[in-house]
Amino acid sequence: MMHTLDALNRMPDGDFIAAIGDTFEVASWVAESAAARRPFPTVAALHGAMVGMVRAAPRERQLEFLRGHPDLAGKAARAGSITDDSKHEQASVGLDSLSEVEFARFHHLNDAYKAKFGFPFIVCVRRHTRDSILAQFERRLGHDAATEFAAAMQEVFCITRLRIAAKVTGDGMPEVNGRLSTHVLDTHAGRPAVGVTVELYEFAGPNAHCIHTDITNADGRTDKPLIGGRPLPIGRYELRFAVGNHFRSKGIECGDPPFLDIVPLRFSIAEPEGHYHVPLLCTPWSYSTYRGS
Amino acid sequence: MMHTLDALNRMPDGDFIAAIGDTFEVASWVAESAAARRPFPTVAALHGAMVGMVRAAPRERQLEFLRGHPDLAGKAARAGSITDDSKHEQASVGLDSLSEVEFARFHHLNDAYKAKFGFPFIVCVRRHTRDSILAQFERRLGHDAATEFAAAMQEVFCITRLRIAAKVTGDGMPEVNGRLSTHVLDTHAGRPAVGVTVELYEFAGPNAHCIHTDITNADGRTDKPLIGGRPLPIGRYELRFAVGNHFRSKGIECGDPPFLDIVPLRFSIAEPEGHYHVPLLCTPWSYSTYRGS
Amino acid sequence: MMHTLDALNRMPDGDFIAAIGDTFEVASWVAESAAARRPFPTVAALHGAMVGMVRAAPRERQLEFLRGHPDLAGKAARAGSITDDSKHEQASVGLDSLSEVEFARFHHLNDAYKAKFGFPFIVCVRRHTRDSILAQFERRLGHDAATEFAAAMQEVFCITRLRIAAKVTGDGMPEVNGRLSTHVLDTHAGRPAVGVTVELYEFAGPNAHCIHTDITNADGRTDKPLIGGRPLPIGRYELRFAVGNHFRSKGIECGDPPFLDIVPLRFSIAEPEGHYHVPLLCTPWSYSTYRGS
Amino acid sequence: MMHTLDALNRMPDGDFIAAIGDTFEVASWVAESAAARRPFPTVAALHGAMVGMVRAAPRERQLEFLRGHPDLAGKAARAGSITDDSKHEQASVGLDSLSEVEFARFHHLNDAYKAKFGFPFIVCVRRHTRDSILAQFERRLGHDAATEFAAAMQEVFCITRLRIAAKVTGDGMPEVNGRLSTHVLDTHAGRPAVGVTVELYEFAGPNAHCIHTDITNADGRTDKPLIGGRPLPIGRYELRFAVGNHFRSKGIECGDPPFLDIVPLRFSIAEPEGHYHVPLLCTPWSYSTYRGS
Repeated sequence: MMHTLDALNRMPDGDFIAAIGDTFEVASWVAESAAARRPFPTVAALHGAMVGMVRAAPRERQLEFLRGHPDLAGKAARAGSITDDSKHEQASVGLDSLSEVEFARFHHLNDAYKAKFGFPFIVCVRRHTRDSILAQFERRLGHDAATEFAAAMQEVFCITRLRIAAKVTGDGMPEVNGRLSTHVLDTHAGRPAVGVTVELYEFAGPNAHCIHTDITNADGRTDKPLIGGRPLPIGRYELRFAVGNHFRSKGIECGDPPFLDIVPLRFSIAEPEGHYHVPLLCTPWSYSTYRGS
Repeated sequence: MMHTLDALNRMPDGDFIAAIGDTFEVASWVAESAAARRPFPTVAALHGAMVGMVRAAPRERQLEFLRGHPDLAGKAARAGSITDDSKHEQASVGLDSLSEVEFARFHHLNDAYKAKFGFPFIVCVRRHTRDSILAQFERRLGHDAATEFAAAMQEVFCITRLRIAAKVTGDGMPEVNGRLSTHVLDTHAGRPAVGVTVELYEFAGPNAHCIHTDITNADGRTDKPLIGGRPLPIGRYELRFAVGNHFRSKGIECGDPPFLDIVPLRFSIAEPEGHYHVPLLCTPWSYSTYRGS
Repeated sequence: MMHTLDALNRMPDGDFIAAIGDTFEVASWVAESAAARRPFPTVAALHGAMVGMVRAAPRERQLEFLRGHPDLAGKAARAGSITDDSKHEQASVGLDSLSEVEFARFHHLNDAYKAKFGFPFIVCVRRHTRDSILAQFERRLGHDAATEFAAAMQEVFCITRLRIAAKVTGDGMPEVNGRLSTHVLDTHAGRPAVGVTVELYEFAGPNAHCIHTDITNADGRTDKPLIGGRPLPIGRYELRFAVGNHFRSKGIECGDPPFLDIVPLRFSIAEPEGHYHVPLLCTPWSYSTYRGS
Repeated sequence: MMHTLDALNRMPDGDFIAAIGDTFEVASWVAESAAARRPFPTVAALHGAMVGMVRAAPRERQLEFLRGHPDLAGKAARAGSITDDSKHEQASVGLDSLSEVEFARFHHLNDAYKAKFGFPFIVCVRRHTRDSILAQFERRLGHDAATEFAAAMQEVFCITRLRIAAKVTGDGMPEVNGRLSTHVLDTHAGRPAVGVTVELYEFAGPNAHCIHTDITNADGRTDKPLIGGRPLPIGRYELRFAVGNHFRSKGIECGDPPFLDIVPLRFSIAEPEGHYHVPLLCTPWSYSTYRGS
């Protein structure tokens, strides 16, 4: 249920805690402390205050807090004993539908991680593709305890920032969304390329699967961003543009088969809250791209 | 066995016919007629004269000549009753190792083709990938008889031009070879990109398999063309450049994961005797390519 | 004085004629006829109706109307006997400050033109640079009478469309303005280039003079279009970008002197109502541009 | 007069000294010492040995040697009392035809320089444009004595390396020449742009003057490098390509006036012995360039 910041600032403590108490996983004490600090001028300030309380808590309480998080793709997730927020977040990246082999892999990493650090692996899954979660997992297993403690806390703050942004509206929303966009310029004609089919693929290991298909409009752009209104999952992507059809439809001689048919642009996203503009400038015989903004 | 044009011009008729008689499949009359026209000033003129004799032959003889060609990927090829030249040419494109399903497909096309035109499907396989042979087959099945008769003859001339070029050396060689080359320019540093791994993939249907791997030299080029000294097989290709490693090795900040890692350039070759230069101009954040020469 | 379309639609005929009667040079009959056709749903429709009346007028009246226009840069302009609108329009392109030689040149062309066509040369000066007015003059002198009559009428419609757009506000304004914009992308850093000095030059013959200077903002763009809110004068231009300073300020090795210092982009504008986006994508060793939108 | 290294290695000492004694300005002792070190395996080794002798000489002798050089653009040059080599070198960059004002400027700089360092300003003029000589002059005036002594010696070695390369042929020539080249690729057609007029301008202050005109051949290149067979003078340049004519001649719609007509590429040369390849990739609506090799 969505609340306005204004309403949250004015409701009784009990209602406030009921409204946002599950933001920090099994740590309603965070909301309880926050209740007393009201009012907050911005939604970002509300989240910032909650983060501040976790940071200020004694190490033992922080550790207990981290330990309260479910195993990623773990047994708890399968058994249904985790919060709804966690469930949705893990489903978004396909962690609810792992094969037995993949489940075993995650399970093994999780055990090794917990044995080393004493709390489960926490990652803000909505900021990642499956590939980058796995890469994170392996990289973070190599951390020393202090580095990893800080890394885990940072992930909690990313997770809860997204949760707050999903539950509360009002002034000063925290920045949680990125944007991936494109446009196609036909530099043979000196005009936007209209009606070009654009496919967005996400890589999982060596394979890429199509996650979005669109068509360029009169301005050579897609009507909406390819990804928008949410964090951009860190990972590897490929845009594929059907430029062969575009030039063929205009009767332009391009060779048989055409020198360029499907043009792939392969790139990675590293900043979930960033703006990635990945355009294609194209003739039947040449093309270029760049990271724009 | 290789002959010089000079020697061919001077040897007895019988030796000449023995030397190049199998150039035109089961049509030694072509070589017999050519023997009498000697000397030839160039190797291209020798081939041109043989082509002229086929063109000047009565329609019935031309038809008989086309009928003398083996089925592509046909039973004859399996049974070993075709000329050595034909065998090598068909092996080069993988037609000697078709699966049962593929064999059946080719067999079916071949039957339909022969039923319509009265002679087997002839194609200069060394100028094609497996994909484009299949595309040719289906396209040419749609021809009317006169168009296809001319198309088949043209293929014979391509096949025999290659055979002559492989058997005879001397002045005025016919143009039979293409060249595919690349170079990598690091426009971040304003210098050739040295030591970049380049892979060349050939597409067969939706799949691409690596047919060549190379590393750029001090000039940002490969020491030899990616394909050279032979016709470029018509088909779809992809070059993949490991630019992420290149920039990482120089300590340049590129994002994590790097915005560009493996850059694919996908293009088609339509002119087997053409020069295709497909370079990559690249920074960690942008790239471009074009068909150069 | 500015009027709303709504007010024009409702005011007495006399006021209406007083308000827009001088739109069509010395032809208040156009406004008189238009008064009776009110109300107009859009400003464009008001102008369209006035144009329709001129088109529907007898040839003799049209000719008289064209004859009522002042000589471009002519004696009338010097003597002050022309409408205020004409005076401002001619000043905008420098026609009020011609040298004696230039004045003589225009005078000579004007005489030749009037001798051939029987009315003065009419051109919508706000859609042109001085260079393109001269080019127009010489080209149109070569027209036959019918072609030139139509060309002159077309210019009148451009002139009056601008006048109406300057006098009347309301729904459905006619499209009279173009836009010239740029942005600078630093593809060495993968970011917009901030703080780059951009100069816009306009060519007059072989010489170019700076007509605008700007600095790129945090998005690599200028805060306002280089030209906007008015027609883009047809002519030749050059953008000059101080990219050498940009890269030097970041401590990047660029050579001494730097390979690229001031980068000029030279282009022409042919569509006064068009959108010209002329960006610069740049490293210290390479750059590219294109006509975007 | 040209000598072979072989002949120089074997001729009597007196002839050897006569042949190359004036290489190091008024310092025939260098050649005398070199005579005794013969034979030299390469021309570069001959020059290297002579350089070594100057480097090994006592400071006083080095200073006397530097003092033996003529004033750049000085009175000696006007009076004709300098070596022929010096005369030709100074003429190549226009120092023999200075205006009175320019002569006064050089004279003033020269006086200041000599007052500070005790020897005349020495620069290898063939590696510079007039602009960069002036820039060098002002920059080097700011040096401390030790830095400038080394800089002057370095210039002498550049001057004499060029003199040796001009007088002696044989194995292992020293590298003294650079190369400036271009090519024009029509990425609208996917082919080299043939018959395009290319002009090379050199800047002197704010003005540029044309120093070479060429036309692209069938490969889109000029038959010879724009500058080759000599050092590339350090300085600012502009290439101008008549691409408007190119596209117009092919009947391609480019706008009126064409969006691109004369395309200028402005760049600097910093390495006289370097290879600068400055190509143009162009459609009627876009272009790019880069420093290639």
